[in-house]
Amino acid sequence: MKFRRSERLIDMTHYLLERPRELVPLTFFAERYSSAKSSISEDLAIIKETFEERGVGTLQTVPGAAGGVKFLVKISDSHAKHYIKELCELIATPDRLLPGGYLYLADILGNPSIVETAGKIIASAYASAKIDVVMTVATKGIPLAYAVATQLNVPVVIVRRDSKVTEGPTVSINYVSGSAKRIQTMLLSKRSLAEGSKVLIVDDFMKAGGTVVGMVSLLEEFNASVAGIAVLVESEKIEERLVDEYISLVQLADVDVREKRIKVKEGNYFNRNGMEE
Amino acid sequence: MKFRRSERLIDMTHYLLERPRELVPLTFFAERYSSAKSSISEDLAIIKETFEERGVGTLQTVPGAAGGVKFLVKISDSHAKHYIKELCELIATPDRLLPGGYLYLADILGNPSIVETAGKIIASAYASAKIDVVMTVATKGIPLAYAVATQLNVPVVIVRRDSKVTEGPTVSINYVSGSAKRIQTMLLSKRSLAEGSKVLIVDDFMKAGGTVVGMVSLLEEFNASVAGIAVLVESEKIEERLVDEYISLVQLADVDVREKRIKVKEGNYFNRNGMEE
Repeated sequence: MKFRRSERLIDMTHYLLERPRELVPLTFFAERYSSAKSSISEDLAIIKETFEERGVGTLQTVPGAAGGVKFLVKISDSHAKHYIKELCELIATPDRLLPGGYLYLADILGNPSIVETAGKIIASAYASAKIDVVMTVATKGIPLAYAVATQLNVPVVIVRRDSKVTEGPTVSINYVSGSAKRIQTMLLSKRSLAEGSKVLIVDDFMKAGGTVVGMVSLLEEFNASVAGIAVLVESEKIEERLVDEYISLVQLADVDVREKRIKVKEGNYFNRNGMEE
Repeated sequence: MKFRRSERLIDMTHYLLERPRELVPLTFFAERYSSAKSSISEDLAIIKETFEERGVGTLQTVPGAAGGVKFLVKISDSHAKHYIKELCELIATPDRLLPGGYLYLADILGNPSIVETAGKIIASAYASAKIDVVMTVATKGIPLAYAVATQLNVPVVIVRRDSKVTEGPTVSINYVSGSAKRIQTMLLSKRSLAEGSKVLIVDDFMKAGGTVVGMVSLLEEFNASVAGIAVLVESEKIEERLVDEYISLVQLADVDVREKRIKVKEGNYFNRNGMEE
């Protein structure tokens, strides 16, 4: 009997972690383990407590006949602070500097564990929000977008800069890139986004915000709305930021190409308020 | 005391699942929970048994002073068969057919849960193999590549068809696309791949295999070697497949544009042998 509870706890932990924001009826677990609902409730209480203590997330119980339990990711602020501090140090290495003041970040964006944690932290800010889909633009934002979408249990749509035969009919817009002031095109497969969708825009890097503004106009063509904007890194203060409301994990404070010095600080993630329900 | 074991089991399950193939010393857990190593060993035995029973994976114990335990993903064949069958049905919907016989798969590739399961199944085939890095080509293979790399605990490198300033110096090659017989270019950032790396190539779709062959030649330029090739979908039998050894989850058996019919069957995943250590 003791073993049964152990087995249940392990399997439920795995099951719930794999399905964030998905409502799992208590009867599902009761049948899965041939256990009484009261035992399942006790198990869930222990899991909830442990998740909260460890800064992993929480369980939300929905009462009633159509009720059940769902896991919401909720990385604790102390965990997030620690992670962001490490990320800042990683980004501040001088050998990332490329000609033109660009930063080489492919190793960071190519590390699934770093990207997944970033995704969990961003998703924590939207865990209770109404989000139908995560949108990003090819290529570098894709991994982060999936990491966020996984935790929000929603699909990802990918905006492209060039048309591909495998996309079917597309809707395209022109936009002005904020920093280079060049006219560019972006397009999205027509059938990839339903009308009225609430969309969380995710990208790896934001400079003036031209690309994000482009995605916002693209959403208008789909009668979809922006539910949030989140980026991993925002560039140092620039004169004219085209986007007001967004969250960032990291902010470049000062990039000095001549002195080969990169100053990096925490983004605005912890200053957000009123974003959660 | 009963609660302590419960809490340990939940937290260890979470901790291990988040870090596949990472060796965690028993002393780490012993200190984390202020528990005796013998209790930790008992916990791990229960977790291992539950993971194996549920077809999730296994725990591997490495004895000795530098020893510990690691989680290896190992989706059971029955789970994998079930998943692949569902995927086949999903792909066989006639409204995916695009002009030219192309298939719209963006909704499938945009579903994090589908992609993650595919990644776990592919990673199960390589869980014990020596893999240093997963390589894919932008754009559509990226989510699957991350899903596999997450489970193998290795970085992802992304080959591009165009050069980007944020990549730094690149190495490029020309290759012949197998189906269209066109000369194309692909390139990889020079600092993204270390010499001698053992590389698992992952892509969403393989037709004749020209792109994969291109990636293989690119690896030669880096003195890196191919540790495996895995694709989600391979196209129907074509005269001249350029690649011999690969695994696929799904195979298109027959795409009839005029009749609007797509026949899909299981790929060669279950026929593989001798691939694992």
